[in-house]
Amino acid sequence: MMSGRGLVNRARRLGAALLPAWLTLLVAAPAGAEDGYDLWLRHAPLEGAARARLAAFDPRPVLVPEESPTLAAARAELEQGLAGLLGEQGGNGGGTGGEILLDCGGAGGDGRFTITAARRTIRIAGTGELSCLYGSYALLRELSLGADPSSIDIASVPAMPLRMLNHWDNPDGHVERGYAGRSLFYWWRLPGHVDRRMVDYARANASIGINAVAVNNVNASPLFLTPRYLPKLRALADAWRPYGIRLFLSARFSAPRDLGGLDTADPLDPRVAQWWRAKADAIYAEIPDFGGFLVKANSEGQPGPQDYGRSHAEGANMLASALGNRGTVIWRAFVYSAEDESDRAKQAYAEFVPLDGQFAENVILQVKNGPVDFQPREPFHPIFGAMPKTRLMLEAQLTKEYLGFATHLAFLAPLWEEVLDADTGHGASVAEVIAPAGMAGVANTGSDRNWTGGHFDQANWYAFGRLAWDPGLASESIAREWAALTFTRDPAFLADMVPPLLGSRQAVVDYMTPLGLAHLMGTGHHYGPAPWVCDLARPEWNPCYYHRADAAGIGFERTATGSDALAQYAPEVAAQWRDPSAMDEDYLLWFHHLPWDFETRSGRTLWAELVYRYDRGLAAVDAMAATWAGQRASVDPERFRHVADFLAVQQREARWWRDASLAYWQSLNGLDLPPGAPAPQFPLAHYRALAFPEAPGQ
Amino acid sequence: MMSGRGLVNRARRLGAALLPAWLTLLVAAPAGAEDGYDLWLRHAPLEGAARARLAAFDPRPVLVPEESPTLAAARAELEQGLAGLLGEQGGNGGGTGGEILLDCGGAGGDGRFTITAARRTIRIAGTGELSCLYGSYALLRELSLGADPSSIDIASVPAMPLRMLNHWDNPDGHVERGYAGRSLFYWWRLPGHVDRRMVDYARANASIGINAVAVNNVNASPLFLTPRYLPKLRALADAWRPYGIRLFLSARFSAPRDLGGLDTADPLDPRVAQWWRAKADAIYAEIPDFGGFLVKANSEGQPGPQDYGRSHAEGANMLASALGNRGTVIWRAFVYSAEDESDRAKQAYAEFVPLDGQFAENVILQVKNGPVDFQPREPFHPIFGAMPKTRLMLEAQLTKEYLGFATHLAFLAPLWEEVLDADTGHGASVAEVIAPAGMAGVANTGSDRNWTGGHFDQANWYAFGRLAWDPGLASESIAREWAALTFTRDPAFLADMVPPLLGSRQAVVDYMTPLGLAHLMGTGHHYGPAPWVCDLARPEWNPCYYHRADAAGIGFERTATGSDALAQYAPEVAAQWRDPSAMDEDYLLWFHHLPWDFETRSGRTLWAELVYRYDRGLAAVDAMAATWAGQRASVDPERFRHVADFLAVQQREARWWRDASLAYWQSLNGLDLPPGAPAPQFPLAHYRALAFPEAPGQ
Repeated sequence: MMSGRGLVNRARRLGAALLPAWLTLLVAAPAGAEDGYDLWLRHAPLEGAARARLAAFDPRPVLVPEESPTLAAARAELEQGLAGLLGEQGGNGGGTGGEILLDCGGAGGDGRFTITAARRTIRIAGTGELSCLYGSYALLRELSLGADPSSIDIASVPAMPLRMLNHWDNPDGHVERGYAGRSLFYWWRLPGHVDRRMVDYARANASIGINAVAVNNVNASPLFLTPRYLPKLRALADAWRPYGIRLFLSARFSAPRDLGGLDTADPLDPRVAQWWRAKADAIYAEIPDFGGFLVKANSEGQPGPQDYGRSHAEGANMLASALGNRGTVIWRAFVYSAEDESDRAKQAYAEFVPLDGQFAENVILQVKNGPVDFQPREPFHPIFGAMPKTRLMLEAQLTKEYLGFATHLAFLAPLWEEVLDADTGHGASVAEVIAPAGMAGVANTGSDRNWTGGHFDQANWYAFGRLAWDPGLASESIAREWAALTFTRDPAFLADMVPPLLGSRQAVVDYMTPLGLAHLMGTGHHYGPAPWVCDLARPEWNPCYYHRADAAGIGFERTATGSDALAQYAPEVAAQWRDPSAMDEDYLLWFHHLPWDFETRSGRTLWAELVYRYDRGLAAVDAMAATWAGQRASVDPERFRHVADFLAVQQREARWWRDASLAYWQSLNGLDLPPGAPAPQFPLAHYRALAFPEAPGQ
Repeated sequence: MMSGRGLVNRARRLGAALLPAWLTLLVAAPAGAEDGYDLWLRHAPLEGAARARLAAFDPRPVLVPEESPTLAAARAELEQGLAGLLGEQGGNGGGTGGEILLDCGGAGGDGRFTITAARRTIRIAGTGELSCLYGSYALLRELSLGADPSSIDIASVPAMPLRMLNHWDNPDGHVERGYAGRSLFYWWRLPGHVDRRMVDYARANASIGINAVAVNNVNASPLFLTPRYLPKLRALADAWRPYGIRLFLSARFSAPRDLGGLDTADPLDPRVAQWWRAKADAIYAEIPDFGGFLVKANSEGQPGPQDYGRSHAEGANMLASALGNRGTVIWRAFVYSAEDESDRAKQAYAEFVPLDGQFAENVILQVKNGPVDFQPREPFHPIFGAMPKTRLMLEAQLTKEYLGFATHLAFLAPLWEEVLDADTGHGASVAEVIAPAGMAGVANTGSDRNWTGGHFDQANWYAFGRLAWDPGLASESIAREWAALTFTRDPAFLADMVPPLLGSRQAVVDYMTPLGLAHLMGTGHHYGPAPWVCDLARPEWNPCYYHRADAAGIGFERTATGSDALAQYAPEVAAQWRDPSAMDEDYLLWFHHLPWDFETRSGRTLWAELVYRYDRGLAAVDAMAATWAGQRASVDPERFRHVADFLAVQQREARWWRDASLAYWQSLNGLDLPPGAPAPQFPLAHYRALAFPEAPGQ
């Protein structure tokens, strides 16, 4: 029998060799390994000159006398953040005792802030205490990115008043279109216990400027309006108030019937209006800064004013009157019904544009980025710019319902940038149209330890907040700062990973729905490809409704010879998409039905171009996975493994999308694949037989 | 404007004063606060003499040459555990270089181990590598509790072969009777990603001797038997194998029909037997140490052999034959149906005892601790001891379906100890009856950061494992070691908290179902009191079926003048419960229907005794909360707050149980409350109107 210390190393090698690599990692992982919980607020110790500068400055946060919970939070954030940036050794040794002066006045204000440095003092100032909170986060971000504390000079103003997350979370913890575990909100335990996540969630939001949260699903349970839930809601609002987060509720329009004992929810019935007024009063008695109601009405089976022959404006205005000047009604423009079978993409515009000017002042219309439903790519929604007398808000989707769930790496800032920068043709970009209202994002958070399921999904939360504060930010700079704050400041890592991040959304477009295709996913759960589905009850539920492919061609004709959805856009905007030979081919099949041999600008036939783009998408994912594999030395082992695992899933699923789609198109057009393009791995029947009854988020 | 450092302290005071206490804590909480994730494997630094002894010994783990994943795991555990116990300074300074020799041979063995110390060497030895793993955990536990490493001397043998957890987890993440978030098992992400929780879960289990896990609900989805799930199951089995955990599956008896394309699941049909054999072969090809099938058949609507006129034995034996000598069928004895309306408590015995001797060798019958269903107190199940030719396993419930969910503090070791120690009257205690088979516990784990929802629910997981390894352990010593490992070794804390822990289960009995009452909870979700429910379709679903209360009296007559369930027990056991005036009153109304003025042994009438016990339960909870409030200085702030919050909920809900129950009993018996007993807070109608459609775990 051998014995002695010499064995330890040998045993270590042998023991490790007997375990799968991922298991070796987990068995050997020290407690407190990086798990993503800290998000972009990691405040990892600075290195080199940046650390030396900060240590020399040695700043301590100091409040001016107007103390408040918000200022206390800002100070705590600075203290913890600076301690993190200075690392274990701290900054006490060589520093000369700098100060960070929080000098912002009292409540109120829009959060704009300035950060200036003079001698040994950094001064954060603004129009109210939230300015100091936002300024503190901005200062930490800049310092973390290596800024010199002695020369810092920032002025920042939010571009829009409402920077909001919408949670599609149900009382039982299920999250519709949630891919990161169960709901963040533990309704069952509230108000008895407020989980610390509720504060860390508010911190994360405030750090990127988010200031409003609708806590429940727009397919709303009436439970949230019952007296039993009021203390629960209040507990959250209390926890979030120091961080400037206002709580909104998704309200079920039929609540007066569901809960109030009335036989109607007709918005023009005085008893109904009275019920809502009393409900609003009860909420404001507990939550004085309650934000208001978010409403999905007369869409996908939800109740609404049209059930009583009333318009969306009549419904929204009744609720707006119940809130009075205390809050806002956010009314969703996402509507579709079987009544207009011609083109689902046209319905929202057709219903809402005629109502322009009829909405009360405290009503905002929330419009999805595109006219169908958060597809990997859609043209911007034609309502933007077309309702000049109505405040319009952009609704974006952080949770990747149609872009690979939490597993696929798809950085969405380029998608949102594309929409925000779009010229509506009505004298303003989308960003300018929404500036008086705001942006809402369907949240991608859940109970998963890393909040968002995939580590790179954190980037979408971050990017959404940053863009809502400043739509002029470039995706590239957002990606760079997020990656540096979240993973590592290593320039080689950033040089390697920022470009694939920026290209990742186009990769999803390419391997799922290239060239303007849309809505080809599996029924119900929206997982995986199912372009063959054509037997669902309502026409616009079917993928075949969207692609309209047959032996002759593919695409949805939306010019005057088709549904004429193009006419909903301003003339110069419509003009750019009218000629399939001269347009941006990213929208080609969105607007045109074309023969398979249509010649694209590459010189390839439409069929060859389609195959080319699927393969381009796959290649991008493979390249991204290879690039990530090279980062092992730069990233902590646990997150490295997590991301690598997810990328491997994405590689498999991208191939599945490409192969299943091509097998189906071939079954229609009978065409061979272009030379060099690999055949689908399985026959079409294989893909059609796949079933995933337990897919998440339904 | 004031400025300067002097402000910091003032601001700190003021800022804190403006926040609710719990929020101050969270805002100020440092990253890495105690959150319960580390369970009893915290290995907090030792103090005083214990630390000095360990530092002087300075032991390093050393493997003998038979390295393996299990031994590598044991060594990693020792390295991390010792580092934790020695704290930041480590043990390198003054030590003389002790060794921990892991000397256990190869695979196999039952895990028994010895730990002996001689000179500078601690030797862990046994009958196979699992001995070294179990011994390593035992050594760390003893050292953490202050044992002197130089004189350690332990020999330990597991009392039963199967020490098992049953998860009632569904593929979509919902956990039936789960109160700690969603499922631990992320089926959707497997096998692509194995969460580190899967390894930490195995570590926790192995550390207390648990060696088997049924991963899915006994109300089983057939998905688990599809080819798509096999790689998922394999990934878990691979992760758990180094820790000695064998994976079992709950199998849906109708799977050959559901999945196999057969028109029958008749166990005597050769095609059915062939289907199961092929399925077992496919599983063993991927998981060579697959444990076997857990089956709930012909109970509560589940399919089973009786659907084809076959017996439980015929069903179980067919599956046993499919497994062959590779694995075990665990067949649940929990059955009830509308056919025997006389007494649900009698049905399992009536169905199974006649089958004694008919089960194959690799079949185990899994019997709940009591004859109804995991109530706060039941007499032991009469099957124990009555089937000498059949291996019987005890099924306990860790998740507190009937004891206040995760929110109530109820330490269950006394409940299990009561059952294990019960003399069956057939020449053996329950513990002796189950020794050839094992114990299964319905798991209480979920995705909550602290694993079990309530921090004190961790104690039930711990106690279950410890008792399954050694049913002779006293609840008191289990409580003491768990509390010391998990919270603090502070003797004052242990002296304060161990007694209320030990009394906590009796408190629940008292405030929910005193004096042998049972099954009075809300319908479906089992949350809160609902003794008035009497209109459900099947008689034995109704609380009124169990209490049988009216103006004259209360209780279920189970003597010969009633259902005669008493006759299912051995004569001397039955004798102890026959005379209501001479028996242990904890079982009084379980066995007897008595008039309200029946004189109990306290001299009080039954009614007064009932009220007395409700109030005793309340007082115990109030006292426990007060005792906890005194531990602020001993416990980290985050867990202190968490437990305090939950105890406040328990105080409110205990009062609700007492008040609602008394209001209902008074509506039947018209009796006044005894002098001094406070009236229910609300009228009965209030309690009856409460509705909780979203209660967890349904």
